[in-house]
Amino acid sequence: MRIHGESWRSIFLADDGWTVTVIDQTRLPFALEVCHLRTAEDAAQAIREMVVRGAPLIGVTAAYGVALGLRADATDEGLRSALKLLGGTRPTAVNLCWALARMMTVLGDEPPGHRVERAYAEARRIAEEDVAACAAIGRHGATILEQLSSVSERRPVNVLTHCNAGWLACVEHGTATAPIYAAAAAGVELHVWVDETRPLNQGARLTAWELARGGIPHTVVADNTGGHLMQHGMVDLVIVGADRVTAAGDAANKIGTYLKALAARDTQVPFYVALPSSTFDWSVTDGLRQIPIEERDPDEVRFVDGWDGEAARRVRITPAESPAANYAFDVTPARLITGLITERGVCRADTDDIRRLFPRG
Amino acid sequence: MRIHGESWRSIFLADDGWTVTVIDQTRLPFALEVCHLRTAEDAAQAIREMVVRGAPLIGVTAAYGVALGLRADATDEGLRSALKLLGGTRPTAVNLCWALARMMTVLGDEPPGHRVERAYAEARRIAEEDVAACAAIGRHGATILEQLSSVSERRPVNVLTHCNAGWLACVEHGTATAPIYAAAAAGVELHVWVDETRPLNQGARLTAWELARGGIPHTVVADNTGGHLMQHGMVDLVIVGADRVTAAGDAANKIGTYLKALAARDTQVPFYVALPSSTFDWSVTDGLRQIPIEERDPDEVRFVDGWDGEAARRVRITPAESPAANYAFDVTPARLITGLITERGVCRADTDDIRRLFPRG
Repeated sequence: MRIHGESWRSIFLADDGWTVTVIDQTRLPFALEVCHLRTAEDAAQAIREMVVRGAPLIGVTAAYGVALGLRADATDEGLRSALKLLGGTRPTAVNLCWALARMMTVLGDEPPGHRVERAYAEARRIAEEDVAACAAIGRHGATILEQLSSVSERRPVNVLTHCNAGWLACVEHGTATAPIYAAAAAGVELHVWVDETRPLNQGARLTAWELARGGIPHTVVADNTGGHLMQHGMVDLVIVGADRVTAAGDAANKIGTYLKALAARDTQVPFYVALPSSTFDWSVTDGLRQIPIEERDPDEVRFVDGWDGEAARRVRITPAESPAANYAFDVTPARLITGLITERGVCRADTDDIRRLFPRG
Repeated sequence: MRIHGESWRSIFLADDGWTVTVIDQTRLPFALEVCHLRTAEDAAQAIREMVVRGAPLIGVTAAYGVALGLRADATDEGLRSALKLLGGTRPTAVNLCWALARMMTVLGDEPPGHRVERAYAEARRIAEEDVAACAAIGRHGATILEQLSSVSERRPVNVLTHCNAGWLACVEHGTATAPIYAAAAAGVELHVWVDETRPLNQGARLTAWELARGGIPHTVVADNTGGHLMQHGMVDLVIVGADRVTAAGDAANKIGTYLKALAARDTQVPFYVALPSSTFDWSVTDGLRQIPIEERDPDEVRFVDGWDGEAARRVRITPAESPAANYAFDVTPARLITGLITERGVCRADTDDIRRLFPRG
């Protein structure tokens, strides 16, 4: 992605060749700043505190976190300890476990003296594979948008998205946004409704910022709004990302996704989930019962971060004495999903059609 | 409602006997302040700027606004001008038109010299009727909560509500909250999930504050959360208010209500709308096509009001260049509504059953 004429990724190595550098996503859109991660604990903290977020980027950051951990201690114990530290950061996005399992497989039998180099190489490979997967998701998804544009008499094609499944959630392109960027580049006239995505406002803060950088017309709306838009024909398609998709097609994604899927079903608007295959959890089929849903600090609901004209500032929006609850994800049952957009193409959200694209899981 | 040991209503006359006094709801929960309305324009501005809000309270304020307008000019022209000014303040809540039509009927044939006194008397009557209607809604709705409590093995009974349909939206008791207060007074163990209700956070600011004053256990959640709670059996009942309900039972209410109704249907949670009969619009049957939906200033989405520890402060949560849209209401189709809780009892949301309770409309 280009920002002020410079080419950016959400994560990259500093000029020293080993310091992991990430955009600090807690500061956007009010400041574009980077964080330098030099230890596995730095990486774990960046994931926990959502300096980086988004299932694919969490996976990539964790992989680099293992490399950082091994720089300090490349023994079996050092490897185990880095994997454990990073594995405990966030429970819902399966890309985290996926990336760590892959690092374990690659590094377990490697002699300690070779592990650091091998870990960086594997983390880089995971990142590049994610870039390629997102680019492919963009091509497959753009076809859907192009078809909608060709059959629809209305212009532009109106897409609604929830949270940020953009390049900031990945390394490049994004998952849900990849088809948008690809279709726009192919000349499709688009407009994106951006759910602000309480409580952390990843839509209002990150997706809006991304789309503005990419020159994509968009409008921020309160999360409450999508149903009304769909009832009145103002949404042609919903595309969201995912944090974990079961082998049967249930999709865990940012809290509130389920509500938009219900509205899409009630109003016959197509509802797509875009994901790289690293987001599938082949071990589970019942999303509602088997996917752990993270509960985060209630103060994320009680307080809002914004810009007061001069500085970033946090304000409380509830009475001081009122408690809050903060479930970070919900599960959209496969029956509400029109299709999954993956790097291998588009499939229905059911076991058979997913297996058609991914026969070996 | 008692606050710090004092008895309060949302609207009342000052000691001078004519100045209309309202709680400034834009300042809650950070400050409990009143606004004095001395002209029809004061009343119109209070409604437009949501110093007062909530369909029943809008109606009562408009009625008193007519009285204030007549103090300055009690001629036919003065009456017409006050009705026009107040009628143009907000489009969705039908209680506004209802109250103004009633004032017109009562005052039109009255000689100018008697109009001011008659207007105050009628406004007071509208307010007292609303108090009585809300008390009756509380009794009828409490029966539902008591039944749930008696059949449910779980304690407490979990109610979810959206926006503020509390005493702050009315004069006393509230509509959606009236059954909660009544059931709690009758000893039913309750807990309320409070949707924060973006963009203006009437749930987080007003409902949470009200419930805290009333000693009702409650938890504030992001609007995105209700679907997840219902999927996991954490909601026994949804009760919301309404701004306009058609003769066929479609209900316009705060944006996002439709999404909660969809989740309730999908998870078999009962979904009730509580309203006084002044909220029925007998002239329309198709809520989606016939109820005007207010669009408010997009800056209500782009900026959030909160408390920074020392003062109320407004912060921007979107990129400066990103536009926003602000639809204030949506329409929940009657098919998604389990029942309407009115001052005459509970009925199904369909033409026949509504007519059973209100044969003359």
